Amino acid sequence: MGKGDKDWKAKAKKLKAKLERARQRLERLAAPPTSAAGVIAPPAAKVVQISPLAPAGFPDLPPVAGVEFAAGTAGVRYKGRTDVMLARLAPGTAVAGAFTRSSTRAACVLDCQAKIGKDSPEGAAILVNSGNANAFTGAAGQASVDALCAGVAQTLGLPAGRVFTSSTGVIGEPLPHERILSVLDDLSGQLDAGGIEAAARAIMTTDTFPKGAMAEVETDTGPIRIVGIAKGSGMIAPDMATMLVYIFTDATIPVASLQKIVSRNLDTSFNAITVDSDTSTSDALIVAATGKGPGKPLTNLRLREARDFEAALAGVMQDLAHQVVRDGEGATKFVEIRVTGAETAADAHRVAMAVANSPLVKTAIAGEDANWGRVVAAVGKSGAKADRDLLTIRFGDMVLAEKGWRVPDYDEAAASAYMKNQELVIGVDLGLGTAAKSVWTCDLTHRYIDINADYRS
Amino acid sequence: MGKGDKDWKAKAKKLKAKLERARQRLERLAAPPTSAAGVIAPPAAKVVQISPLAPAGFPDLPPVAGVEFAAGTAGVRYKGRTDVMLARLAPGTAVAGAFTRSSTRAACVLDCQAKIGKDSPEGAAILVNSGNANAFTGAAGQASVDALCAGVAQTLGLPAGRVFTSSTGVIGEPLPHERILSVLDDLSGQLDAGGIEAAARAIMTTDTFPKGAMAEVETDTGPIRIVGIAKGSGMIAPDMATMLVYIFTDATIPVASLQKIVSRNLDTSFNAITVDSDTSTSDALIVAATGKGPGKPLTNLRLREARDFEAALAGVMQDLAHQVVRDGEGATKFVEIRVTGAETAADAHRVAMAVANSPLVKTAIAGEDANWGRVVAAVGKSGAKADRDLLTIRFGDMVLAEKGWRVPDYDEAAASAYMKNQELVIGVDLGLGTAAKSVWTCDLTHRYIDINADYRS
Repeated sequence: MGKGDKDWKAKAKKLKAKLERARQRLERLAAPPTSAAGVIAPPAAKVVQISPLAPAGFPDLPPVAGVEFAAGTAGVRYKGRTDVMLARLAPGTAVAGAFTRSSTRAACVLDCQAKIGKDSPEGAAILVNSGNANAFTGAAGQASVDALCAGVAQTLGLPAGRVFTSSTGVIGEPLPHERILSVLDDLSGQLDAGGIEAAARAIMTTDTFPKGAMAEVETDTGPIRIVGIAKGSGMIAPDMATMLVYIFTDATIPVASLQKIVSRNLDTSFNAITVDSDTSTSDALIVAATGKGPGKPLTNLRLREARDFEAALAGVMQDLAHQVVRDGEGATKFVEIRVTGAETAADAHRVAMAVANSPLVKTAIAGEDANWGRVVAAVGKSGAKADRDLLTIRFGDMVLAEKGWRVPDYDEAAASAYMKNQELVIGVDLGLGTAAKSVWTCDLTHRYIDINADYRS
Repeated sequence: MGKGDKDWKAKAKKLKAKLERARQRLERLAAPPTSAAGVIAPPAAKVVQISPLAPAGFPDLPPVAGVEFAAGTAGVRYKGRTDVMLARLAPGTAVAGAFTRSSTRAACVLDCQAKIGKDSPEGAAILVNSGNANAFTGAAGQASVDALCAGVAQTLGLPAGRVFTSSTGVIGEPLPHERILSVLDDLSGQLDAGGIEAAARAIMTTDTFPKGAMAEVETDTGPIRIVGIAKGSGMIAPDMATMLVYIFTDATIPVASLQKIVSRNLDTSFNAITVDSDTSTSDALIVAATGKGPGKPLTNLRLREARDFEAALAGVMQDLAHQVVRDGEGATKFVEIRVTGAETAADAHRVAMAVANSPLVKTAIAGEDANWGRVVAAVGKSGAKADRDLLTIRFGDMVLAEKGWRVPDYDEAAASAYMKNQELVIGVDLGLGTAAKSVWTCDLTHRYIDINADYRS
């Protein structure tokens, strides 16, 4: 055998090996949809890629007087992952909130609902774990909540009735609460006014980035600070509350006033977002006002400062809600569905949610297809009052369809070009009245299926 | 160069070419999920693969006295694809039906609704095209319907009021009805009692197989025959009707009785299926009874023969509804959601649909993950009355959870093994009353996204 011969043989051998590896990769990737392999996340899906819609970074949140944080590693589900956060709130903190209306809600949600909104001169605490939702865990679920509340109460010297807990993660597995109890002393030793980013990271599950937001309100006596953190990425279709959201302020405000403000701003924030139409068993929003800041006491909601505070708090709530959508499982587009001209607010909401939850609209957005026909179909199925011939459909500022048909100068190329944007506004004017509603959603991509055919939630 | 050398060189060249092709395929398939390319259907998706849930073949449908079919190629959207079907019905045929309740329904649907259910001694015709839905096409849409009805009426010598049309395909594009008019003469010349399979194929869009079903009812004077065809694969969440379904019988029955039977059997057939929760603008079910068979006239619905006829027709309706789900876009599993123990029928329906439409339940099924926790979450969000601690969740005959938690002897391995089946029954007992409801759905796979990020419907 000559040298040339040998070279070619070696080359062929190498190519053959390469081809075999390529063949094996192809087999894994191109498994026909009939096989289970085709729907299991490919290995690439396990690498956590930060959402392309994520903000540049976690915001620089200032400390809030009367609030300290600690985060730890309890090994609730996975070893070595930060999975528990503790927040200590100063004596007299007003605690308000909103929770899922799911009829199968978790024990910790029921417990929070029973405790929230009451006046108290005592301190308070919030304990949150990821990795296990303690949902649909029967009597054991309540026992876990009781054990955790008692543990925190003892560690921090508080009444158990002032300890609020949340759990997020897998449903139906018993919560190994003793693992959390065993790290409480450590957490208590680490409590720090600057620990909020670590706390935001500790409550993540399929989230790809920690979520935070802030605002300051000027008053005669000094500023009021508001900071908040949230988690949420899938199972997002809040119903009177949202995923896990914690907002802290040093404002001095009666708990009833705080609750009123929180409740009336849900409709433009957490109740106006959807990732996948699936409402969680564990949604919880807790807003704590410590009264330890220099700001003017908000004793009357008609005060200018109180109105400013409400606007600022509403802004923080909407910012966090948007961040949850920006981290929607598999999201590549952030989409506002802007409904106007509805006869009633309920109809505006119904139409907006029907469009935002339509798998056909969401896959068209993923495919950057200017498929306004699917928007029309979603309006039609919504159950809201709508007249086909009065509808106007806009993508951004472009009117695509009106008076029951596409506009005469309809420009498919321009519409398609618009769909390439990462942030989209789909406008639906019903032409019937003056009610309006915006909701925010994301597209439906292969990655949503990768994540959810694989992740046990 | 020796022979061996040449052989190796040729082999290497061949391998190199193969490797390049493999590399190119890999590149297409493995595009990262964050890029737009990741959500566009890979070329493989364009090859129509028949649903793994398809029946063995199109059933052998017998001719029905008084009904003839023709199918043709009008080039409505694509050249060379069979895209129009015509059915001629004998004089005196009773025509009943049910249609979408979408508020943005198509012109042809509105036209059918105005014409259906009336007594007439005249013949009748059904004209259906695929490729264009003639939906949201304003005044031009109605003009197209009028032109088609007039054309068929003239060609077949019928009043236009007895011509029923349906259109399916892209929304918002003007229907090039003149292309259909130009083939009417041809179609009329081909009308044949045995042409039903070609008709079933002509109305397919993203369907992967033609759908047909039949039944026979014995009576003293001879059998009554029922045959039906359907199309539907995506945008399936019928609301008082379904995708396009045409059922033909030689029964002799007053049109009011026929309509009554059709209406009361929708809830167990077309209104009990969902592929993607998206209700179409064009759903139509038409049932035509020619009265030309030997069967006993069904003048009274309390007759044994009328009851047998109703049961047989209900069976054909449910069979066709199931076939639509079996051809659900991207489906690899056929799933019954069986709700029992509800307080009211409406609650049973609400829970069943909430589970059947949950993206998280559907992706878990795709991933063969026995994720009953997501079923619980879907029950919770349904809005129906449910008590967490009275719920029982079954997969097949296996009880997974009851009394608010998983059963003590919960067997994850057995539950996972069950999920490997192609046909699944997910049971939800609410433990509150006696109302029950089954609905049928499929899983949510990558292929659904391939199809819908790419197909303009």
